[in-house]
Amino acid sequence: MEFHFAKRTDLLRASEIREILKITEREEVISFAGGLPAPELFPIEEMKEVSVKVLETEGKKALQYSTTEGYEPLRQQIAARMKQNFRTNFEANEVLITSGSQQALDLLGKLFIDEDDVILCESPTYLAAISVFRSYRPRFIEVPTDEGGMIIEELEKILQTTRKIKLIYVIPDFQNPTGKTWPIERRQEFMKLVQKYKVPVIEDNPYGELRFENEMLPSLQSMDDKGLVICLGTFSKTFCPGMRIGWLAADGRVIAKCVLLKQGADLCTSLKTQMEISYYIAHYDFEANIQLPTGVTCTQPQGGLFLWLELPKQLKAVELLKECLLQDVAFVPGDSFFPNGGVTNTLRLNYSNMPEDKIREGIKRLSYAIRKSMG
Amino acid sequence: MEFHFAKRTDLLRASEIREILKITEREEVISFAGGLPAPELFPIEEMKEVSVKVLETEGKKALQYSTTEGYEPLRQQIAARMKQNFRTNFEANEVLITSGSQQALDLLGKLFIDEDDVILCESPTYLAAISVFRSYRPRFIEVPTDEGGMIIEELEKILQTTRKIKLIYVIPDFQNPTGKTWPIERRQEFMKLVQKYKVPVIEDNPYGELRFENEMLPSLQSMDDKGLVICLGTFSKTFCPGMRIGWLAADGRVIAKCVLLKQGADLCTSLKTQMEISYYIAHYDFEANIQLPTGVTCTQPQGGLFLWLELPKQLKAVELLKECLLQDVAFVPGDSFFPNGGVTNTLRLNYSNMPEDKIREGIKRLSYAIRKSMG
Repeated sequence: MEFHFAKRTDLLRASEIREILKITEREEVISFAGGLPAPELFPIEEMKEVSVKVLETEGKKALQYSTTEGYEPLRQQIAARMKQNFRTNFEANEVLITSGSQQALDLLGKLFIDEDDVILCESPTYLAAISVFRSYRPRFIEVPTDEGGMIIEELEKILQTTRKIKLIYVIPDFQNPTGKTWPIERRQEFMKLVQKYKVPVIEDNPYGELRFENEMLPSLQSMDDKGLVICLGTFSKTFCPGMRIGWLAADGRVIAKCVLLKQGADLCTSLKTQMEISYYIAHYDFEANIQLPTGVTCTQPQGGLFLWLELPKQLKAVELLKECLLQDVAFVPGDSFFPNGGVTNTLRLNYSNMPEDKIREGIKRLSYAIRKSMG
Repeated sequence: MEFHFAKRTDLLRASEIREILKITEREEVISFAGGLPAPELFPIEEMKEVSVKVLETEGKKALQYSTTEGYEPLRQQIAARMKQNFRTNFEANEVLITSGSQQALDLLGKLFIDEDDVILCESPTYLAAISVFRSYRPRFIEVPTDEGGMIIEELEKILQTTRKIKLIYVIPDFQNPTGKTWPIERRQEFMKLVQKYKVPVIEDNPYGELRFENEMLPSLQSMDDKGLVICLGTFSKTFCPGMRIGWLAADGRVIAKCVLLKQGADLCTSLKTQMEISYYIAHYDFEANIQLPTGVTCTQPQGGLFLWLELPKQLKAVELLKECLLQDVAFVPGDSFFPNGGVTNTLRLNYSNMPEDKIREGIKRLSYAIRKSMG
């Protein structure tokens, strides 16, 4: 028996990242592949309390079918957090809960792409976005990039000369795979251009909240007054991937269509899981998962190999190091660099010897250890 | 700003069932719409224990990304249950865990359907299947049905005269919306025909385990020696819909492609949720959710209005009625029908005054009450 699959499956290839992940199911594998968050930092004890609490107070509802749009309180929390962190202008009813932000990519491909339509993207770009868009048989045009993201002149040339451009897909914060972040001026120039050409933009932002220095930059969406920018987010990097909760925020007309497509795709996302995250955000220190603790300051070198951190006075860097080693992260206590000693609350971090995502992971572990030491 | 959506969205319409479900999010609504299982029967206390247990023993793994195929022990449990209940021939590696069986429908549409390909289905058929298949722009041909399912002669005419038939979609057990079940002979004739014409068949079976009289019938797949039949199942009706766990079992080549499509659709299904269901099946009485308790016997009338149930001797129908009223289900204790009285363990059920799905729900509530009374 020969199966006759649809044409769209001709280009279907296994994602190397996902194939590798299969191996990581074995407990003994220490995996540096695929950008997995460190499970040591998952709030397991807290999640036990949260699971019981949700079942106790809303069990019947949590285990039932629910609406496709998602759990209203969680949509509100997401809209509020995006506003605060990235200055977006979305209200709760413009947020659709998805099964990870991967599902949002699938819904948007399905919503916008006819065969031979064009998608513009950074070069290189996120592997799993390429792979899911490909199933709708578009043409990809890779826009040349420099250190600050898409090169505006190149983008304009393409916009001027290309027909059937349906979407521009970008990751302006800590891009995967390059780690690049678009500076604010680039964002402004980009938005001026796409508003002129009126092309919908997918602003994928799984990593933006994992910033460990400087302020978060305003999103592309915050510079959009035409409803063009569709924002994607996820709890997979800031909380736990196993929850499979992401979101898509967009103009109401896009949301309405995506809701219908999601009905077809999976009816709704687990309400139990949505309630658990919502409860966690409301009752626990969610920011602890993603930021350097208050009271810690950090130099911002323009070059070289090192960062210098100052801890709250009561913390001893040597004690912190012991805790850090339990979390598999290391540094040099600063005391050694003072000829006369006596400064016990500083430390030196080297960041030249590893990729961006490993640095980010390391800072998360360090933050966790500092918080634990602060009690 | 005008959005230019893909052609496939032209036919995108809101599902009435899902729109109605929005209203049911309000606690005070007693919903008879949409086939919602009764939340009173959800094993909430047990799920509290299960959630804690899973986080305690495998928290780091449960909250992490996982493989797209699904949690191996759960795949084994599903393969074994299908074998036992429906005599299927699938092994664990031919089972793919999906986000409800709705996702399986989406994956199969994506895998098989090019524009203008033909899908054959019962007339009428399941609303959400029509709606998700429609997004791949097929032509539907409705096969005439009688009380026993698709009429074989009509099906053969269509198979003989129609080009580009890619799939046959059927629900042979307690079909939605008609409640019809295909007798065993019809299944055999159907399989003889589709094996002759070599058309893949989706055998959707969300209700088959909710049988409250007679034996479960062998699945279409059990009569398939060409790898044509793809079986869909779900825990939404036998356990809790809010878990959003379903599955697709098929020939390895179909599974391999669906895994790639699922990677694009949502990377993976929540491992935490999969582990919870797996743990529940392994350690609790899963069958209690779906069968009349052991020791209860039931007449099988060929007509009329009533069923007659006999309970284990130690149970009193009058006491059971009190428990049943708490669960919003009622019957007449049988004692009244004996002129001399003294038979306290029988009861009469009327089934003529309500649709099939309400009867099924009522039997579930009754079974729950009997189990509770048995201790």
